[in-house]
Amino acid sequence: MSIDLNSDLGEHFGAWRLGDDDAMLGIVTSANVACGFHAGDPRSILDTLRGAAARGVAVGAHVAYPDLVGFGRRPMDVADAELEADVIYQIGALQALARVAGTEVTYVKPHGALYNTIARDERQAAAVIRAIRAVDSTLPLVCLAGSRLVNWAEAAGLHAVPEAFADRAYEPNGALVSRRESGSVIHDPAEVAERMVRLAREGVVAAKDGTDIAVPAASICVHGDSPGAVEIAAAVRTALLDAGEELSAFASGASGSRGAQ
Amino acid sequence: MSIDLNSDLGEHFGAWRLGDDDAMLGIVTSANVACGFHAGDPRSILDTLRGAAARGVAVGAHVAYPDLVGFGRRPMDVADAELEADVIYQIGALQALARVAGTEVTYVKPHGALYNTIARDERQAAAVIRAIRAVDSTLPLVCLAGSRLVNWAEAAGLHAVPEAFADRAYEPNGALVSRRESGSVIHDPAEVAERMVRLAREGVVAAKDGTDIAVPAASICVHGDSPGAVEIAAAVRTALLDAGEELSAFASGASGSRGAQ
Amino acid sequence: MSIDLNSDLGEHFGAWRLGDDDAMLGIVTSANVACGFHAGDPRSILDTLRGAAARGVAVGAHVAYPDLVGFGRRPMDVADAELEADVIYQIGALQALARVAGTEVTYVKPHGALYNTIARDERQAAAVIRAIRAVDSTLPLVCLAGSRLVNWAEAAGLHAVPEAFADRAYEPNGALVSRRESGSVIHDPAEVAERMVRLAREGVVAAKDGTDIAVPAASICVHGDSPGAVEIAAAVRTALLDAGEELSAFASGASGSRGAQ
Amino acid sequence: MSIDLNSDLGEHFGAWRLGDDDAMLGIVTSANVACGFHAGDPRSILDTLRGAAARGVAVGAHVAYPDLVGFGRRPMDVADAELEADVIYQIGALQALARVAGTEVTYVKPHGALYNTIARDERQAAAVIRAIRAVDSTLPLVCLAGSRLVNWAEAAGLHAVPEAFADRAYEPNGALVSRRESGSVIHDPAEVAERMVRLAREGVVAAKDGTDIAVPAASICVHGDSPGAVEIAAAVRTALLDAGEELSAFASGASGSRGAQ
Repeated sequence: MSIDLNSDLGEHFGAWRLGDDDAMLGIVTSANVACGFHAGDPRSILDTLRGAAARGVAVGAHVAYPDLVGFGRRPMDVADAELEADVIYQIGALQALARVAGTEVTYVKPHGALYNTIARDERQAAAVIRAIRAVDSTLPLVCLAGSRLVNWAEAAGLHAVPEAFADRAYEPNGALVSRRESGSVIHDPAEVAERMVRLAREGVVAAKDGTDIAVPAASICVHGDSPGAVEIAAAVRTALLDAGEELSAFASGASGSRGAQ
Repeated sequence: MSIDLNSDLGEHFGAWRLGDDDAMLGIVTSANVACGFHAGDPRSILDTLRGAAARGVAVGAHVAYPDLVGFGRRPMDVADAELEADVIYQIGALQALARVAGTEVTYVKPHGALYNTIARDERQAAAVIRAIRAVDSTLPLVCLAGSRLVNWAEAAGLHAVPEAFADRAYEPNGALVSRRESGSVIHDPAEVAERMVRLAREGVVAAKDGTDIAVPAASICVHGDSPGAVEIAAAVRTALLDAGEELSAFASGASGSRGAQ
Repeated sequence: MSIDLNSDLGEHFGAWRLGDDDAMLGIVTSANVACGFHAGDPRSILDTLRGAAARGVAVGAHVAYPDLVGFGRRPMDVADAELEADVIYQIGALQALARVAGTEVTYVKPHGALYNTIARDERQAAAVIRAIRAVDSTLPLVCLAGSRLVNWAEAAGLHAVPEAFADRAYEPNGALVSRRESGSVIHDPAEVAERMVRLAREGVVAAKDGTDIAVPAASICVHGDSPGAVEIAAAVRTALLDAGEELSAFASGASGSRGAQ
Repeated sequence: MSIDLNSDLGEHFGAWRLGDDDAMLGIVTSANVACGFHAGDPRSILDTLRGAAARGVAVGAHVAYPDLVGFGRRPMDVADAELEADVIYQIGALQALARVAGTEVTYVKPHGALYNTIARDERQAAAVIRAIRAVDSTLPLVCLAGSRLVNWAEAAGLHAVPEAFADRAYEPNGALVSRRESGSVIHDPAEVAERMVRLAREGVVAAKDGTDIAVPAASICVHGDSPGAVEIAAAVRTALLDAGEELSAFASGASGSRGAQ
C-alpha cells in the first residue's frame, strides 16, 4: 500500500513569485503544475517542470478558469464548449513543456474555483471530463474524495483519484468545513501529520465533531505557498514514512518517466 | 512539382471575428492557425481546426508574441528563455487541440512582428529554432524567402520552407517593399494571380523596377481577412490550377492526416 | 416628456471590430462606452468618444467584469472590494479619455453578466453602488426597469435610470423572457418600433401573454452590433420622433457638454 | 533647498505580492503607483493609495506598456496613437482611485522599458508628452536626469523633473552604467547614502572612473522590492536628513493634498 502527496506548483507569473517550488519538490510525489490560466508563464512553468523531472516527481496539469487577476479562485459560469477547449489547450501546452523538460503530464487536477465547481456541478464536470478523454483517456483526474465528481469521472471511463486535504477539517458528512468557519484549517504540523497517518493507514479522519469518518483518498494535498505550509508538508511526509507508509505517485507514467531519466 | 498555398486562420477572439476561415479553407492547402497569443481563444481555434481537418488542409502553429491588443504586430524585445518557452507552450496547446480535431500540427510559422524580427535577428531566431527542435525537430519552419532565417534554420537541422507573399511588391534585392511605400501591396487579383503563376513556374517575380528576381518559394501566403483578400486568394488558386500547377501542402504529415480521415 | 435611446458602443479590441459605432451615434442619445474590461482598447475607446462628442451623444461608463475572452458575459463571483475597485478604475479611465475627447462621463451602466447579476444580487449591487458614490455620487446608474437594483440604488442616494429593452419580450411579471426561450427576441423592426412608441407614450408594453404591463423606463436600450440591429434601432428612433416624442439624454451633463461643443 | 525621494509601489497583482509598500511609504516622499498595465490590480492599487494618503506621500502615475507577463520591462514598438491613449487611460484610472483614497495624482513617471525608451526615442516621448498635456498640462513628468526627454518635455511646456538613481553607477558622460556591466549597481547602503548626500548638496556624483559629474536631479529614485533595497532606501533617507537636507515631494499638489487630510 502506498499513498501520494501532491501540491500546487509553478504558480509564478513573470516577475511575481509564489510558493517555494524547490522545497516542495523535495517533499511531494506529484506536482500539480499551473498551465498559464490562473498562474504560470511558460518560462517559469518550464523551470518548475525541469525541477520535477530532476526529482522524479510526477507532473499533473493544474487546469483552471482563465482568470489571472483572480488566481482562478472566482467561480465563473463558462459555457461547455469553452471550458472543454480551455482544458484541452492547457493540457496540451503543459504536455509540450513537460516533454521538453524531460518528463510528461500523467494526470489532471483542476484548480481553485474550477475544482470546487466540478465537484458538484455536473455540466461543468462533464466538460472537463470530455476534454481529458479527448486528449488522453488514460490520464487520471484528481477529485475531491467523496464528491460526485468521482462517480461522474468513473462513469465516463476515467480513472478518478480521490484526494484528501492535509490541513482541512471535515464535516461529519465528509465535506470540507467551509473556510468561512473558524477551525476550518488546522495549523499544527504535528496534528496534521497524525491525522494523515491515520488516513493513510485506516482510511479515516476525525470530523470536527470528533466522529471518525471514512475518507477513501489515494492522494493527500499539501500546500506550499507559505513557510508554515512547507513545514506542515514536511511533517506529513516524515510522519507517513516513519509510520511505514510508502510514498509514491499514483500515476504510473510518472515512474516510467522517472526511470527514463 | 507542386506548390503550397498558406493563409493565417483562427484569428478570432471570444466575441470578435476576423477573416472568413470557411472560405479560405476551400482555397488554401495549409492553414497557419493562431495559438492564443496574438489571437485565438481555445474554442474558436478548435472550430477552425475541425474545419481544416474536414477539408484536408494542413495545420501549422502560428506562434506569436504575447500581445492580444496589438495582434502580435508590435516588435517586442523578449528574452531568449521567455521566447523559447512561449513558442513551446503555443505549439503544445495547438497540438492538443489539433489532435482532438482529428488532425495534427505539421509545421510552424511565426506571426507578425515575430515573423519579421526573426527574419533578421539571430538571437530571437535562435530561440524560436531551439523551441521547435525541442518539441519536434521534424516540424518545418516557414520563413521569408531569401531571409537569413532560412540559413539559420537549416544550419540548425530544421526544414526551412521559404515562402513568397502573393500580393506584395518586391525590391530588386528580393526584400518586400515596405508597407509604408505606395505600391507595396498589389490589389488587382489578375495581376497577383499572374505573378504567382510565374513564381510557381519559373521561380521569379518582377521587382518594382521591372527586373526579374529569383524568389525560391515553396509556399505562397495569401490573406483572407477582407472580402477583397478572399477574392485574390481564389484568383491565385484558380490561376495556378489552370496553369497546370499542383497545389499541395509542403508538410508531409498533412497528407497523412488527410488520408486518415 | 422625453425619452433616451442608449446603445453599447466602443466594443472593439485592437484589430477586432464589433458593431457600427458611426451608424449608431446618428441614432442614439446616450452611448454606453466600453472601458477595457470586456472590450475596448484605449485607442479605439478614444475614437468612439470623439465620435460621441462630435454628435452630442451623452457618454456612460459601460463597466464590466474583467473578462475579455468572455466579453463580460460570464457570471463571476467577484469579491466586494475587488468589484468596487474595478468599477472605480474603469470609470476613471473613461473619464480621462472622455475629457480628452471633449466630452464627459455622465452616467454608469454595467455590462453583460454584471448588469444581470446586480439586478438581483444585493452584495454585488452594493459594491457597484459604493464605487459610483465614491467617484461621483451624482452619476446616474442605468438599471433594468422593475429590478430590485432600482430600489437599492435609490436607497443609497443614487439616481437610478430604469431602462427597457427595445427588442426583448417581457414576462407578465415584468421580467425579460429568457434568451433560452423562443420568442425572447423580437426581430421585426416595425413591431419593435410600435412597442417602444407605446412604452414612451403610455409606459406599458404587451407581455408575451398579451397582457399589458407597466414598464416605467426612462431609457430604451437598442443594439447595434449587426446590420439588422442598426435597422431596428433606426426604426425605433424614427417611430418615436414621428409619434411626437422628444429624444434626449437623461443625463443632464450631456446637454451641457453638447452645448459646449 | 529640498529633494524628493521616489519609489515604485503598488506593484502587486491579484494573489501576487511584490515589494514592501508599507515600509517604503515610511521612507519616500513620492510614490510611483502602478496603473494596471505592468502591475497593479485595482484593489491592490487602492490599498497602496490609501497608504500613501495616510502617510502624506505624493502619488504619481507609473504608466507602462501593456505587458503584465514582462512587467513592462520589454521594449515594445507601440504606435503613437496607441501609446498616447494608453497613457491617458492609465492616468485616468489612477486619478479616480486616488481621489477615492483621499489623495490625488500629482505627477507622471513612465515605468521600465517605456521610461528607458522615451529618454531617447523622440516619437514615443512625444506621444507620452501629448497624453500628459491632454489630461492635465500641469502634471510634472519625471525624467532621467540628463536625458533628451527633459528637453522635449520642457519644450512642450511640461514641468520636467530630473531624477537620479540612488544605487546605480554613472558613466563619465552622465549615462547610467548598463546593468549588463559589473559594478552597475551599488549594494553598500553606506556608499549609496553618501553618494546621494553629495548629489543633494553639490549636484554631483562620482562616475565609475572616479571623476565628478554633474547630475542635476530634483528627485532620487530608491527601490523597495527586496529587503536589501528597503535598507538602502532607509539609509539614503537617514543620511539626507542627518546632512540637513529637507525631504519633500516636488509636486506641489502633494502638499496640498497632504494638508487636506
